[in-house]
Amino acid sequence: MNFSSKLLEDAVAEFAKLPGVGQKTALRLVLHLLNRDRDEVQKFSTAISKLRNEIQFCQTCHNISDQKVCEICSSPKRDHSLICVVEDTRDVMAIENTNQYNGVYHVLGGLISPMDGIGPADLQVDTLVERLKDNAVKEIIFALSATMEGDTTIFYLHKRLKQFNINISTIARGIAFGGELEYVDEITLGRSIVTRVPYENSLS
Amino acid sequence: MNFSSKLLEDAVAEFAKLPGVGQKTALRLVLHLLNRDRDEVQKFSTAISKLRNEIQFCQTCHNISDQKVCEICSSPKRDHSLICVVEDTRDVMAIENTNQYNGVYHVLGGLISPMDGIGPADLQVDTLVERLKDNAVKEIIFALSATMEGDTTIFYLHKRLKQFNINISTIARGIAFGGELEYVDEITLGRSIVTRVPYENSLS
Repeated sequence: MNFSSKLLEDAVAEFAKLPGVGQKTALRLVLHLLNRDRDEVQKFSTAISKLRNEIQFCQTCHNISDQKVCEICSSPKRDHSLICVVEDTRDVMAIENTNQYNGVYHVLGGLISPMDGIGPADLQVDTLVERLKDNAVKEIIFALSATMEGDTTIFYLHKRLKQFNINISTIARGIAFGGELEYVDEITLGRSIVTRVPYENSLS
Repeated sequence: MNFSSKLLEDAVAEFAKLPGVGQKTALRLVLHLLNRDRDEVQKFSTAISKLRNEIQFCQTCHNISDQKVCEICSSPKRDHSLICVVEDTRDVMAIENTNQYNGVYHVLGGLISPMDGIGPADLQVDTLVERLKDNAVKEIIFALSATMEGDTTIFYLHKRLKQFNINISTIARGIAFGGELEYVDEITLGRSIVTRVPYENSLS
């Protein structure tokens, strides 16, 4: 694209670096910003730079936080003997929204993915092992994506955590609530038959 | 959504104000920025704030420019007796990419749209009329979107420009090159029959 202004070109190039944003979308977003008030655009710019420079991660669970220890980790109401291992902060938000979980979290910050060059050392694995050493934790729940990367990560973590005397579980896989059987993929449907549960258990 | 950090919440809220960006996409973009280097994120933030504070518009054609008069308007190679009227800078870029046009431009900065409260006074209409007063311009081409707003704007401008002794034309409408007839909408197809051109003319 031939831009009539270097400032415009720079801003479009920066927006186009975002995932899922191409040159055309970037230009549309930039022109939108040009039509907004200066103060509003300044607020946008400041929010981004503050975010990156001032954000903190909870020292215990490594979730994004404004304090050194996040609200969940510092809450006496939560069950600190139960740790749910997730990929990132979005998963914490999703699980918190269910109102079904009262334990604490451990945010890995990604999944093991040899293709993308992400190994265990890039994730919060050692800090998870560290958390288990005082024997206060009774159960670990893996709530990771049902993908190749998720499965690889669970496999690796399971091997590392076997040494501790704790229960290790993963969230249930099967057909989603409201899902029509004919549209469910074969692998999910097949596995959901193999891992069927007694009807009484499914009611709770 | 329940955010674990105010900084995160602010950044997501700012991104979600962009057109076509919802809360979930905004969160994805923000988490992407958190994974990038500080310097890169600072560059992104700076590009946005510089864009809004330092951008200029060409005094003649009102296109986005880094100088007071843009390159096209100051070029002696362009035909200054031919003005192409467009909505915004994206249209200038699209027409420049065709390499078929050697005149100059006039960027309206929008289209007349009573529904959105945009009238002629919000656009660069008076400045267009001003440009025609020295009788140096021989032809005006309207290259506006084939929408209700585009047609309304052409209708209004045509009335305002009638007083001058210049040719007024609009870009041709019809089926696109490579377009298969059965997929063309009825209005376009119908109009393209009514406004058919002699075969010899269509070859040039």
